[in-house]
Amino acid sequence: MNMNYNFSDRVTTIRPSAIREILKLSNDPSIIAFSAGNPSPESFPYEDIDRYTGEILAQDPVVALQYGITEGYEPLRDVLKQRCMDVYHSYNETYDDLIVTTGAQQVFDLFTKTVCNEGDTVIAEGPAFVAALTAFKSYGANVTQVDIRRDGIDLNELEDTIKNAVTPRFIYCIPNFQNPTGLTMSLEVRKGILELAKKYDILVVEDNAYGDIRFKGEHLPTIKSMDNEGRVIYTGSMSKLLSPGLRVGFTSAAAEIIGKIVVTKQINDVHTPVLNQMICHRFLTESDVKEHIRKINAIYLRKSDLMLDALDMNADGVFSYTRPEGGLFIWCTLPDSIDMLDFCKRSIEHGVAVVPGNAFYSDDTAKRQGFRINFSSPSDENILEGVRVITSVAKSM
Amino acid sequence: MNMNYNFSDRVTTIRPSAIREILKLSNDPSIIAFSAGNPSPESFPYEDIDRYTGEILAQDPVVALQYGITEGYEPLRDVLKQRCMDVYHSYNETYDDLIVTTGAQQVFDLFTKTVCNEGDTVIAEGPAFVAALTAFKSYGANVTQVDIRRDGIDLNELEDTIKNAVTPRFIYCIPNFQNPTGLTMSLEVRKGILELAKKYDILVVEDNAYGDIRFKGEHLPTIKSMDNEGRVIYTGSMSKLLSPGLRVGFTSAAAEIIGKIVVTKQINDVHTPVLNQMICHRFLTESDVKEHIRKINAIYLRKSDLMLDALDMNADGVFSYTRPEGGLFIWCTLPDSIDMLDFCKRSIEHGVAVVPGNAFYSDDTAKRQGFRINFSSPSDENILEGVRVITSVAKSM
Repeated sequence: MNMNYNFSDRVTTIRPSAIREILKLSNDPSIIAFSAGNPSPESFPYEDIDRYTGEILAQDPVVALQYGITEGYEPLRDVLKQRCMDVYHSYNETYDDLIVTTGAQQVFDLFTKTVCNEGDTVIAEGPAFVAALTAFKSYGANVTQVDIRRDGIDLNELEDTIKNAVTPRFIYCIPNFQNPTGLTMSLEVRKGILELAKKYDILVVEDNAYGDIRFKGEHLPTIKSMDNEGRVIYTGSMSKLLSPGLRVGFTSAAAEIIGKIVVTKQINDVHTPVLNQMICHRFLTESDVKEHIRKINAIYLRKSDLMLDALDMNADGVFSYTRPEGGLFIWCTLPDSIDMLDFCKRSIEHGVAVVPGNAFYSDDTAKRQGFRINFSSPSDENILEGVRVITSVAKSM
Repeated sequence: MNMNYNFSDRVTTIRPSAIREILKLSNDPSIIAFSAGNPSPESFPYEDIDRYTGEILAQDPVVALQYGITEGYEPLRDVLKQRCMDVYHSYNETYDDLIVTTGAQQVFDLFTKTVCNEGDTVIAEGPAFVAALTAFKSYGANVTQVDIRRDGIDLNELEDTIKNAVTPRFIYCIPNFQNPTGLTMSLEVRKGILELAKKYDILVVEDNAYGDIRFKGEHLPTIKSMDNEGRVIYTGSMSKLLSPGLRVGFTSAAAEIIGKIVVTKQINDVHTPVLNQMICHRFLTESDVKEHIRKINAIYLRKSDLMLDALDMNADGVFSYTRPEGGLFIWCTLPDSIDMLDFCKRSIEHGVAVVPGNAFYSDDTAKRQGFRINFSSPSDENILEGVRVITSVAKSM
């Protein structure tokens, strides 16, 4: 073998996600993986999934195993539309459509392909979900981030950013229990984002991957629910509600946008696996979804409290941390006196993997003080031990 | 709603696949769908899939339902590598790697994203599998097609095309039972393509989606098996062997190329659903795969013979057709005196959907005489009735 390969300009800007690489490392059972973004395996309704699958393969095997249509399994689309209308008011019957995707991640890829030319700007929160940012950049979009505060991004800073951006195309945000900060965007900021999007005629991609996982506080309306002109693209996922391994997500948006996403999905993976869509359909129609959500949230409330209590007991002010009302993550901020990357390196040497904060920025070379920890995936024992390790590592620095 | 959306330049060139649109139409049970590309539902091993799924969810549910790694489920990757080595000599242990994808279609998308800049040229057979061509074009590649003959493309014409192309990047071909023609590329042409690729330092994407479905004639070596320098990217699929609805495909190529595809897949759908990969793994390790292939091929031989016999009985030279040694398709060519698109329109009015030949060309506006029919999907009764209809429609014109 003596080949020299030429790769496209586009992929020279994509590097392996730090999170994915750490996820691989965290398969090492001796490492406590605060770095993961996995739902708790306790949350999967194993028996139900087993029963649904058996029923599907007994009653409707040809549909489950044959090619399906790109838009998705019709009965699942119908129930997802209904659920969007009932729970999040994120589907407008008069002009929206909905497509099932192979996880919500696929939406970021296909939507960016559909709306961004090279050199267009996407505006995101800072820090933000890194795999979305990388998808935007992989189509030549420039990503500009606006610092996130306790209640969400600062609206004045957002307006300045939009004004200074080259062909801004959309604002990407996770209003509920943001990844990586765990913060919830206030109603005022939600309204403000939509107003600015309207003022400057750009779109909003509202990622509600964690919406169902609210274990404290009161539900806030989605940005999509306040949109009456088809400006918001709403994405949801079955990953946290049912199972991430099944890879079923969806997006609801104006029919014209969904139509374009269908065309890009046709040539991407033809359709999302049908059996998986049918399992999700049965789960949403045959199980007590509200009761299931109550059970999951009881798990996550307990685990987040366990981690927060351990931090309260051990941190002694050596770093600060958020107190999420939902989702899977807590964001910690080190004082300027501690080098964050050095801290992450020492933590993993002591057996605990955390995600360095710079991984959540388009420009990952700038100095950052934050890091992300996850409470949904580790065992209770590992939560206690992991917190003991990271706080003592920070104190030693 | 009063929005005007701006879409990217890139998607203005993508239109909905004619095949997918016809596939939707062919869901109308009153239409005989010679237009489909579906494997025969008789070929799915329902009971085995049901048993494997039950075993997986009983024995290994956390792995099946949790996030997996982008490269694919390790035990499946191992068995696919072994199968590539044993059956098609399409995996080189010294320098290749293999990634599991969400159907083989995903490879065309991710690979093009990885190697093509806008304006680069991809060379394909003419006619060719349209969803691959559309994937190439969606990244701004120009697609140039070389007419396919009985034994495959003409090598002189291929060389001229390469010489005249702007930055040619790769040759895309289906050597076994090509979609849409059903033709098999001769050993001489396979060797010639690899030699020309070497001479002009371009890559070859060898799509072997139908390789297992040989029901006549003798096995020919893959192009990948003759490559000793990492020039060929080999794609395979579980769609025809097991089930297309599960969406499991793979590609084997030089580790450096696979590494880049992993990075683009991370931000596309994170990973292929794990349960589906585990079903494929059980099928490949626990079932008698050779016996299963014998059973499938007996079905396809019978169905293709049924269709060919009906054509032999009814066509009376009104159009010509190929006699495939495998795969799912027969390609028919109308005389110049009959307008092909008009013929397709009249056929569907008489209850039989066929795929107009222009759908398999990058330039679908040129006048073409071919159309594609499928024998794997319709019932025996519908094969006979459908052939009666299309031959009598052609005779009436």
